[in-house]
Amino acid sequence: MDTSKIERNGKIYMLAYDQGLEHGPSQDFNDINVDPNFIMNLAVAGDASCVALQYGIAKRFYTEEFKSKVPLILKLNGKTKLNSDNYLAANIANIEDAVNLGAVGIGFTINPGQTEEHIAFEKFSLLRREAEKAGLITVLWAYARGPEISNPHAKEIVSYAARVGAELGADVLKVKYTGDPESFSWVVKSAAGSKVIASGTDNFGEDYIGDVSKMLTSKAHGIAVGRRIWQDSDAVNLSKRLADVVYNS
Amino acid sequence: MDTSKIERNGKIYMLAYDQGLEHGPSQDFNDINVDPNFIMNLAVAGDASCVALQYGIAKRFYTEEFKSKVPLILKLNGKTKLNSDNYLAANIANIEDAVNLGAVGIGFTINPGQTEEHIAFEKFSLLRREAEKAGLITVLWAYARGPEISNPHAKEIVSYAARVGAELGADVLKVKYTGDPESFSWVVKSAAGSKVIASGTDNFGEDYIGDVSKMLTSKAHGIAVGRRIWQDSDAVNLSKRLADVVYNS
Amino acid sequence: MDTSKIERNGKIYMLAYDQGLEHGPSQDFNDINVDPNFIMNLAVAGDASCVALQYGIAKRFYTEEFKSKVPLILKLNGKTKLNSDNYLAANIANIEDAVNLGAVGIGFTINPGQTEEHIAFEKFSLLRREAEKAGLITVLWAYARGPEISNPHAKEIVSYAARVGAELGADVLKVKYTGDPESFSWVVKSAAGSKVIASGTDNFGEDYIGDVSKMLTSKAHGIAVGRRIWQDSDAVNLSKRLADVVYNS
Amino acid sequence: MDTSKIERNGKIYMLAYDQGLEHGPSQDFNDINVDPNFIMNLAVAGDASCVALQYGIAKRFYTEEFKSKVPLILKLNGKTKLNSDNYLAANIANIEDAVNLGAVGIGFTINPGQTEEHIAFEKFSLLRREAEKAGLITVLWAYARGPEISNPHAKEIVSYAARVGAELGADVLKVKYTGDPESFSWVVKSAAGSKVIASGTDNFGEDYIGDVSKMLTSKAHGIAVGRRIWQDSDAVNLSKRLADVVYNS
Amino acid sequence: MDTSKIERNGKIYMLAYDQGLEHGPSQDFNDINVDPNFIMNLAVAGDASCVALQYGIAKRFYTEEFKSKVPLILKLNGKTKLNSDNYLAANIANIEDAVNLGAVGIGFTINPGQTEEHIAFEKFSLLRREAEKAGLITVLWAYARGPEISNPHAKEIVSYAARVGAELGADVLKVKYTGDPESFSWVVKSAAGSKVIASGTDNFGEDYIGDVSKMLTSKAHGIAVGRRIWQDSDAVNLSKRLADVVYNS
Repeated sequence: MDTSKIERNGKIYMLAYDQGLEHGPSQDFNDINVDPNFIMNLAVAGDASCVALQYGIAKRFYTEEFKSKVPLILKLNGKTKLNSDNYLAANIANIEDAVNLGAVGIGFTINPGQTEEHIAFEKFSLLRREAEKAGLITVLWAYARGPEISNPHAKEIVSYAARVGAELGADVLKVKYTGDPESFSWVVKSAAGSKVIASGTDNFGEDYIGDVSKMLTSKAHGIAVGRRIWQDSDAVNLSKRLADVVYNS
Repeated sequence: MDTSKIERNGKIYMLAYDQGLEHGPSQDFNDINVDPNFIMNLAVAGDASCVALQYGIAKRFYTEEFKSKVPLILKLNGKTKLNSDNYLAANIANIEDAVNLGAVGIGFTINPGQTEEHIAFEKFSLLRREAEKAGLITVLWAYARGPEISNPHAKEIVSYAARVGAELGADVLKVKYTGDPESFSWVVKSAAGSKVIASGTDNFGEDYIGDVSKMLTSKAHGIAVGRRIWQDSDAVNLSKRLADVVYNS
Repeated sequence: MDTSKIERNGKIYMLAYDQGLEHGPSQDFNDINVDPNFIMNLAVAGDASCVALQYGIAKRFYTEEFKSKVPLILKLNGKTKLNSDNYLAANIANIEDAVNLGAVGIGFTINPGQTEEHIAFEKFSLLRREAEKAGLITVLWAYARGPEISNPHAKEIVSYAARVGAELGADVLKVKYTGDPESFSWVVKSAAGSKVIASGTDNFGEDYIGDVSKMLTSKAHGIAVGRRIWQDSDAVNLSKRLADVVYNS
Repeated sequence: MDTSKIERNGKIYMLAYDQGLEHGPSQDFNDINVDPNFIMNLAVAGDASCVALQYGIAKRFYTEEFKSKVPLILKLNGKTKLNSDNYLAANIANIEDAVNLGAVGIGFTINPGQTEEHIAFEKFSLLRREAEKAGLITVLWAYARGPEISNPHAKEIVSYAARVGAELGADVLKVKYTGDPESFSWVVKSAAGSKVIASGTDNFGEDYIGDVSKMLTSKAHGIAVGRRIWQDSDAVNLSKRLADVVYNS
Repeated sequence: MDTSKIERNGKIYMLAYDQGLEHGPSQDFNDINVDPNFIMNLAVAGDASCVALQYGIAKRFYTEEFKSKVPLILKLNGKTKLNSDNYLAANIANIEDAVNLGAVGIGFTINPGQTEEHIAFEKFSLLRREAEKAGLITVLWAYARGPEISNPHAKEIVSYAARVGAELGADVLKVKYTGDPESFSWVVKSAAGSKVIASGTDNFGEDYIGDVSKMLTSKAHGIAVGRRIWQDSDAVNLSKRLADVVYNS
């Protein structure tokens, strides 16, 4: 699948806003960013190459105005953090929803290593087939997780998650950053042509823009970030600086 | 979805009567209110903006006479309290049933935090898609519940449940009242445009009408109440007073 | 749904013969009543207003001769008693089968209070919708059962089971007899218009006909009985006496 | 369903060859009978009235030559004995397969008393309905099994399994032999018109032909046998002797 | 099904490359063989009669160029090794995918002896039926595995797995090598006409080519091998030597 619709200069900077479901509003949001309109405007003003939303938020806030300004990745599954035994995400939207909302792609989380990983693999595969027919880009949140995974940022683990996503046929893989570009380049190779973007919060230090710049030397295709941008007091400016590094490195 | 069909003056007062399934007749009912006709007449005389019923009751008692007088929200799932391990509700009616009965909307319970919360999320999402096509309003009973939730009325918990409902794409969210309008206003903000109505029994004090009036300063869109109204010895009068506060505050 | 097809004088006397599956032949049957033809002839000669059979028995023994003489309720689910952990009944026939066999209604067992009660509720609801379309009467065997139910004949429990059946939309509810007409009248009220028939073996004493007569003062619509009739040495006569009391009380 | 296609003189002698899946080749087979062609030729030369095979064997060995010589019952489910916790059989073929292979009937195993017996009951019922439409005879391997069944050959247990099969609507029931014709006649009565054939290995003694002859005085309709025939050094001759007793007793 | 499309001289040498999903990239891959293009070129230059890939790799690397040079078996299911409790593989592609990618056959793993073996048996049977209609060869990875299987290479166990695959109707069975041609010939006989190929890593010694040559005296139809070839420093040469032995023994 051609992924250029969510790229600028061949690179991806996805502004992610699925934390309302995954973490709850009180953990990540304040009176400003709890409002999806703030995020939509930030995505445009901050030069993100795409935005990721869950169904209900997209239905209400991804209006005609924004369709021409920032492409949408509709996240199709999710779960809360209210029960630590809940390792299975629900499908809360489908391909028809994505098409109706004007999305150019779909997002889906898998957790290789999770007990019953196969359920998510099968759900994704059904959606992947339909997405291909509908001309939608497929983006996997591929995070290894489970009782036998002690370090989800380890090179062997992140590269395994990336390879799983590649074998499942996703176009883009959102994975944990291993922390250094050398190990992350093995992740990129393991992805076998699927484009790798780093999940942009963990394992980046205080010199955020500088660290992202280093990460991109691994030949990764970009970054997906949320809180680190929209919790910033000068979010638009930070976003533009990040975009500049991603698109021009 | 336009929710004006279940509103008066932009506000919602839903008279709920699903306690027969949820609690059993002997807990909540007496010789008068065990009869659904009593409730139907109360809804009309007491100025409720809509009524919520399960399938079997609606089929028999939501007659032509009432279709022109009070709009119906058909509750689609439910469970008994006869087994404390039963945390999964059954789908007992569907969109076709709702349309056949003349409902203007559907009701559905989710329990974020419950083990296997994903099952209810997926069931709702399937119904939500069909409801949108059929032009039915979607109302979620969004109550966080589960082994790790100690206080289901806490601001962080109620706002989380509301946000889940919003991300799932419901039009209206029936949530627990946090007990004060300040914290409840965070719930309303977290709902990101989904309309919030308070579940009208818990956390309201002896000055019921006064407490509801205070709750509405949170910018919530109304209230859903059952026992507190139809167990009252002067139910019609109490209902009319409540309606007056909801529609005119 | 109009239930007059299984009534005489507005009352129901159902002869039930599903014990072969539920209890096994050696517990309830002898060389005479093990033969379904004996039961079919008894239903006719003994003035039953309908007969309840499982699929295999109905297919072979509900012949053209009987279709004009006694209406059939086809029981759609069941289970054996060979494993006390088996609380889930199987669907062994469907609406198409019922129509093909000439049934006027379907029977289905639910056990509110059972772990995974929701599975049976959902199965019934799917069948209920199809039955309505096919013009078939729906009869629920609504027996509360489960780890937290100590007395399945208690007023609170039987009325709860009846209310569940009513909310699920069944036309007729076969419930346990509470043992006295006063408490049973609460069951009838809780059924909210669904017709209540007593399961005719438990809680009736030695003066069987007299006790049934008393039960009917509760405004119940009749009785369903099996062993108590066809194990009797003069089954036809007992059945006619019972029918007389049911239809004329 | 007319069962005459698998009968001779109104009796059934089924040669069963599903042990490869159920027991593994090394337990029951030798260099001769491991070859399905040996079995096919034996069925013809040995006068069996039908043969029972799993899908893969039938696809390759039930050739045009044999279609005119011996009718096929296609076994539709099965499991291995490699895991004693595996009590659920898989559906490995369906009605379409049976029709494509030229089968006149289907075989299916149920284990009343097994935990989750309902799964097999439901699977069979779906197949039974389709088989009726396709004009295929239904044969149930009805063996009671499970944690509460101490003696699967007891009269009460075998008759229960037979009754279950009859209520499920099977045409022919393959059941354990109780060991004597008196008790087995109760099994035949309990089957309520479904034809009973004895599983021909257990509970028959050294005078095999004589014991089968006695068994048939119970009014059973025949026998199904496998190892006892094709492990014999003079298998064709033994098979012909058995056939003679079955068809002419 | 005619299997000649994946054969040369009536024999099969399948180059398998599904280790990325099954073992993870860091266990089996290096900077060279992590690239699927290396494998594709090796398959051609090394005279493999077919190659086995998972969906995502095939979609991206099984280009038009290769379609005319080496036939594809699309592996349809798989799982990671990140959770030792995960014994259920996911279906990650289907028959439609296989046809779209230009595959001539499908691959599928079953583990007889595994708890819930029935799930994979049923999944395969559904795919097998569709594959037959689409004219695709079916290849089963038939490896007995589970809590009661101590030696998965034992003659009794490998022959059982082969027989299961044969009864399920697969065209080709990829099984563990028992270690000697005598015992392996029992496996071949047990396969009842399904073609047996040895899984080419375990139980072959340092004289790999010689050992494979001995194995083939069992009348097996070939070999499937991966790491042992593409981890070799002179992979093309080793592959050609292996091909020569397989096709000409």
